Amino acid sequence: MKEKVVLAYSGGLDTTAIIPWLKENYDYEVICCCVDCGQGEELDGLNERAKLSGASKLYIEDITDEFCDDYIVPCVQANAVYENKYLLGTSMARPGIAKKLVEIACKEGAVAICHGATGKGNDQIRFELAIKALAPDIKIIAPWRDDKWKMDSREAEIEFCKAHGIDLPFSTDSSYSRDRNLWHISHEGLELEDPSKEPNYDHLLVLSVTPEKAPDEGEYVTMTFEKGVPTSVNGKKMKVSDIIRELNRLGGKHGIGIIDIVENRVVGMKSRGVYETPGGTILMEAHQQLEELVLDRATAEVKKDMGNKLAQIVYEGKWFTPLREAVQAFVESTQEYVTGEVKFKLYKGNIIKAGTTSPYSLYSESLASFTTGDLYDHHDADGFITLFGLPLKVRAMKMLELEKEKNK
Amino acid sequence: MKEKVVLAYSGGLDTTAIIPWLKENYDYEVICCCVDCGQGEELDGLNERAKLSGASKLYIEDITDEFCDDYIVPCVQANAVYENKYLLGTSMARPGIAKKLVEIACKEGAVAICHGATGKGNDQIRFELAIKALAPDIKIIAPWRDDKWKMDSREAEIEFCKAHGIDLPFSTDSSYSRDRNLWHISHEGLELEDPSKEPNYDHLLVLSVTPEKAPDEGEYVTMTFEKGVPTSVNGKKMKVSDIIRELNRLGGKHGIGIIDIVENRVVGMKSRGVYETPGGTILMEAHQQLEELVLDRATAEVKKDMGNKLAQIVYEGKWFTPLREAVQAFVESTQEYVTGEVKFKLYKGNIIKAGTTSPYSLYSESLASFTTGDLYDHHDADGFITLFGLPLKVRAMKMLELEKEKNK
Amino acid sequence: MKEKVVLAYSGGLDTTAIIPWLKENYDYEVICCCVDCGQGEELDGLNERAKLSGASKLYIEDITDEFCDDYIVPCVQANAVYENKYLLGTSMARPGIAKKLVEIACKEGAVAICHGATGKGNDQIRFELAIKALAPDIKIIAPWRDDKWKMDSREAEIEFCKAHGIDLPFSTDSSYSRDRNLWHISHEGLELEDPSKEPNYDHLLVLSVTPEKAPDEGEYVTMTFEKGVPTSVNGKKMKVSDIIRELNRLGGKHGIGIIDIVENRVVGMKSRGVYETPGGTILMEAHQQLEELVLDRATAEVKKDMGNKLAQIVYEGKWFTPLREAVQAFVESTQEYVTGEVKFKLYKGNIIKAGTTSPYSLYSESLASFTTGDLYDHHDADGFITLFGLPLKVRAMKMLELEKEKNK
Amino acid sequence: MKEKVVLAYSGGLDTTAIIPWLKENYDYEVICCCVDCGQGEELDGLNERAKLSGASKLYIEDITDEFCDDYIVPCVQANAVYENKYLLGTSMARPGIAKKLVEIACKEGAVAICHGATGKGNDQIRFELAIKALAPDIKIIAPWRDDKWKMDSREAEIEFCKAHGIDLPFSTDSSYSRDRNLWHISHEGLELEDPSKEPNYDHLLVLSVTPEKAPDEGEYVTMTFEKGVPTSVNGKKMKVSDIIRELNRLGGKHGIGIIDIVENRVVGMKSRGVYETPGGTILMEAHQQLEELVLDRATAEVKKDMGNKLAQIVYEGKWFTPLREAVQAFVESTQEYVTGEVKFKLYKGNIIKAGTTSPYSLYSESLASFTTGDLYDHHDADGFITLFGLPLKVRAMKMLELEKEKNK
Repeated sequence: MKEKVVLAYSGGLDTTAIIPWLKENYDYEVICCCVDCGQGEELDGLNERAKLSGASKLYIEDITDEFCDDYIVPCVQANAVYENKYLLGTSMARPGIAKKLVEIACKEGAVAICHGATGKGNDQIRFELAIKALAPDIKIIAPWRDDKWKMDSREAEIEFCKAHGIDLPFSTDSSYSRDRNLWHISHEGLELEDPSKEPNYDHLLVLSVTPEKAPDEGEYVTMTFEKGVPTSVNGKKMKVSDIIRELNRLGGKHGIGIIDIVENRVVGMKSRGVYETPGGTILMEAHQQLEELVLDRATAEVKKDMGNKLAQIVYEGKWFTPLREAVQAFVESTQEYVTGEVKFKLYKGNIIKAGTTSPYSLYSESLASFTTGDLYDHHDADGFITLFGLPLKVRAMKMLELEKEKNK
Repeated sequence: MKEKVVLAYSGGLDTTAIIPWLKENYDYEVICCCVDCGQGEELDGLNERAKLSGASKLYIEDITDEFCDDYIVPCVQANAVYENKYLLGTSMARPGIAKKLVEIACKEGAVAICHGATGKGNDQIRFELAIKALAPDIKIIAPWRDDKWKMDSREAEIEFCKAHGIDLPFSTDSSYSRDRNLWHISHEGLELEDPSKEPNYDHLLVLSVTPEKAPDEGEYVTMTFEKGVPTSVNGKKMKVSDIIRELNRLGGKHGIGIIDIVENRVVGMKSRGVYETPGGTILMEAHQQLEELVLDRATAEVKKDMGNKLAQIVYEGKWFTPLREAVQAFVESTQEYVTGEVKFKLYKGNIIKAGTTSPYSLYSESLASFTTGDLYDHHDADGFITLFGLPLKVRAMKMLELEKEKNK
Repeated sequence: MKEKVVLAYSGGLDTTAIIPWLKENYDYEVICCCVDCGQGEELDGLNERAKLSGASKLYIEDITDEFCDDYIVPCVQANAVYENKYLLGTSMARPGIAKKLVEIACKEGAVAICHGATGKGNDQIRFELAIKALAPDIKIIAPWRDDKWKMDSREAEIEFCKAHGIDLPFSTDSSYSRDRNLWHISHEGLELEDPSKEPNYDHLLVLSVTPEKAPDEGEYVTMTFEKGVPTSVNGKKMKVSDIIRELNRLGGKHGIGIIDIVENRVVGMKSRGVYETPGGTILMEAHQQLEELVLDRATAEVKKDMGNKLAQIVYEGKWFTPLREAVQAFVESTQEYVTGEVKFKLYKGNIIKAGTTSPYSLYSESLASFTTGDLYDHHDADGFITLFGLPLKVRAMKMLELEKEKNK
Repeated sequence: MKEKVVLAYSGGLDTTAIIPWLKENYDYEVICCCVDCGQGEELDGLNERAKLSGASKLYIEDITDEFCDDYIVPCVQANAVYENKYLLGTSMARPGIAKKLVEIACKEGAVAICHGATGKGNDQIRFELAIKALAPDIKIIAPWRDDKWKMDSREAEIEFCKAHGIDLPFSTDSSYSRDRNLWHISHEGLELEDPSKEPNYDHLLVLSVTPEKAPDEGEYVTMTFEKGVPTSVNGKKMKVSDIIRELNRLGGKHGIGIIDIVENRVVGMKSRGVYETPGGTILMEAHQQLEELVLDRATAEVKKDMGNKLAQIVYEGKWFTPLREAVQAFVESTQEYVTGEVKFKLYKGNIIKAGTTSPYSLYSESLASFTTGDLYDHHDADGFITLFGLPLKVRAMKMLELEKEKNK
């Protein structure tokens, strides 16, 4: 009996060509696994397609809800954003996919896992670190870095497929390099490779329209959170994945969440991409808006650093690490009272705040106003300023004294 | 001869009433000082007004350029933003004003400085910490915290003025509480005191229009920076203050930079405000956009923390401290190569990236693309991932081993 | 019936004098509460003493074990050290004491809590912030900051006591100002007030001897931890408080843990003190030693920042805050595998490492040695260095290229 | 004419064997370069030895003073310590050596640089990152990672040397793996490879004695600093290298600065080592002691993080990066007033503080004492505590209110 490999499979040209390549070069039985994170692709007929390409089996695994609950929600709670802009759509999905691949590999007794990520990107790292952490004794095969992989163009892959009896209608068009899931779609390549060029948005956008093409009329949306978890949109209770779907619809319609970034990859170079995250952008903003009311200053300040830290960890593929767990424990602890409602107006790319409420709001109208009261006497500020400014006054007096001595 | 006090004077009701109050309660000669940070107010006739109110002298000091060069530019270079949103417009101006007040006080041999900031806000702290740091032996008078100050309404102040022979046309209208300078205008009070309410933008906005009222046609703008300092707009070399003026015009027209925030004051309570920073928002975004191309990942990451730190320092009024100097030294060191051009399209509240270039760009099209070359061989990623993932693999193997032992 | 006040009472001169002072000035019934954190003081006869001084009741509350388990252990796990040196002995005890005071106050229906901390120290802040957090509606009385308190010397206090019929044998000697509990003893005052002076250790030390006076023979000690909690000393299982007692004995004998520091108080000035923390120093070092084996690099690095953060939080009296809880959640998450044994040799002030073991050790002898193997091939380092050094190589090449262009 | 390679040469077996290996495998002319960082080795006869081994030339470059001034001093000023213990002795030297190698390579027109660092350590990274940053177009040869390198034991190397006519008296003893320079000596290998074992100090120590063997009499030492730079020992002005020499003598004599650590290497595994840094430990402690008097709390706190950051940067070999420059700019800015004198008593492994003074000391005896005065009124603490504790009081009241509502 042949040894088995589990292949992360999408049905596209790359992962199709990998099937015969694995059989030919490694003499493995190839088990395909297509993990659905809400990428919205056609999965009908995928089974036949995989079999036709030489796979012995295809698993189609829908982890969309797990992706939302276990990966997206913690990142939203942390307000985790990489390099000020990137909402981590692809980064958050990879560990979930890898976990599923490992599960299937264990179930099937496979000795190896194969992925089609390229040798210059972040995804190879995210896949492989997750696999190492979950199944350190399993072999990882990355064809794009493998000397036995000889194909260097779509044409060559199509040729190779045909030579192995796979005659499927693949396009030779080179378009943007994209990754899509429920949370976002990323775009790289073509004109984006030159940071001096404006993105060709009309050609590029998939989930949203540009602000210019968005409706002339704004639209209100309300969202509720309980302990930092989104629970409803416009008054309707929904599970998180449905909330994101609905916000994607609204955000996409109003041109929200289109990001143009030059980011620093883990592997050491800069790359330029455009991300569409219509619903995610709204959701994250709403969460942060609610935290403004509920978190105290000191907590918010340290939490911001923790959020940045989590963003890096996730971006670097270090999901299954003690550090991610510890950071998440910190964040979860802060979410106890992040409960309330946020209202936004969406209008041509803008998220306009339209009121926030929380039973745990620490905002006090009487305190904020100019009057004095039980809690706060204007004289208290005297003492506060004296002590708050004491170190710098002591220092200034010391300098003055030294100055005077010198001038004697 | 009477002892002198220098009063931070605007010509408004509060600082007018303070003049006779100081004379009556402290028996000082009152020297007024109006420091212009580009607030765009009418200064004609201010001299007569001050004299008429009982001041012995009025200084009108224009520090707009100093404000831009010494306070705004370092904060732009640091991308210093308080609590994710506030661009520090008022915070940055206070130390500059205080420095000028101290200068005048020294020149005049005054024994005290008086400011009209309230007892619940941040500004009292910013003024007083700056004064303590620069002139630790000068007395500070804050009428709003002073037991001798008995007026608790605009009416009472007008009455007090009249009783002291000052009959000026002050309005009794209570509007928003505002602070304006070249960089921004802030709004507090009225409906803003309830965070569940949408701001009444039509009533409120001064420097800008809402995105809804902005033109239907977007507008491109280019900006250049040299070593992190803005040097031109749309190809015209200008000094920083003129760049901000021009960007204010453009940003205001297109509804850019309107912020609605619940922020944490230094004195311990939350307050809600709306800020308009049309030009500043564009300038800061442009600077950050340029840094994306020029800064390496590690520098950008630590610099982000330093920027957050600077924002807190400035917000807390600790401008004249060794820590601010040290943070600024860090930031300046990173600006050596922040030189280049940024192009934006402004459209109804949106700043849309339209291309960035720099002679020092670290982006390399050949590196970012999928091909392999001298600098980067796909195989290198193998070794990188092995070592990068080594700690978590070792850990996973240890756990596996313990698991196996346990199951024996 | 009179309103009640709960007084934090030690039986010393200060808190004795406060009893009649409270009755005279506030007309309260005074309920004394002596909270025992292991300070090793004589509590016999304290009840009579409190009654004689005019208290209606005395509670003696031993919270030593709670102090160890709920306050000390989390700080040890975090390796929380203030300003590089101070192991937070007094800081950790204050919230525990305040919590007990609030409990008694609730039980007794008291309207106020009174403490004897001075007006220039940190302890007033720690007591009061804890009380505010736990019982925001209870009044706090701090006699040393109270205008009604007129006594400015020990003599005046003794006089006042006598005038109120309290004739107890108090010494008028001014010695060091000290605070002691199970974890440490602090010393301030006398020659310590001049940082240029060597402490008079022969006069000063209470829990330990100087290294010079320690035995000429070293002594080994082993400690075990389970999930970051100390569980035994020299092979004997003990509760944490007994572990600290035993380590105090050993550390004190060998001159361990004497610290001479100029620290920055929360209230804005520097103060100089000497701390003895014999057992605590050993325990913290042992915990850290074990973590070296068990924590991965990234976790250890962020945890260090979190430990510093916790030290500040605790020092500032902000124990009962969401931020302390969140930081503690982070730390606890990292302790899952901090299990193992640490061996030290104690010798004249030195803690000499003598071997550490853990079932979860991430140290691998084969990996650390010079040989190559499955986990690590020397060639992997090639790829790692290429990618790890890529950003700086790209940058250097860009600079070289610009240099060459310039020289053309 | 042959292409040239510059070899980092020590005269030991490894770098001797590399000479014929380079000639045989790369057909280079080999130029040796021995960079002296104060390692205290015999350099007499090294020239003949290099020539005899086949090198065309030997450069002996003494960079000890540069090492002290440009690398050690900035790290001392930053109090840069890696993973709580390691004073970076080897890490700081590598960039200085690499810089010299690059200089020689440029001068000689060499196309490659070769170093003898192993494939599992940190030094390969430090050498190569420095070379990449300074001369990105030069080729780097690391024989230990080179497939052409076939020797896997000292015996094999000796054999290889003999076969190439190099008959030198090399020992086949395997001892500790060591690295020494003016600042420290490191030890790895033998019994140290098992962290459960006590180091064999009698066998191991080179620069110092154990505390047990140190004199029974302590010894005082005073050091002065100007703007953070050490300037004298015991009243004698000296250059920094001589200060370190003198402190090495004193520290070594008294058993100071012996460290036993399990550290995390950059390449992903833990390793165990013993470091002796007798003088460096004293110098760093003295600097920190002085900063206690001179730096304000906020600066000290951020500077601690920056010091940790610098330690990581240096450990990871990223000396020649914008981030190191920026961190150093921060640190330098804080050193303006780090001027004064520190006195220590050295006694059997202990550094006992014996008094610190500085003209810029921010310690104020009158402020620290219990009395009240101009600068600080006890009442000020009331206001301070009210505001400092306001956020947690507001929060507690909100919770109380919700509690009450719930219980209605």
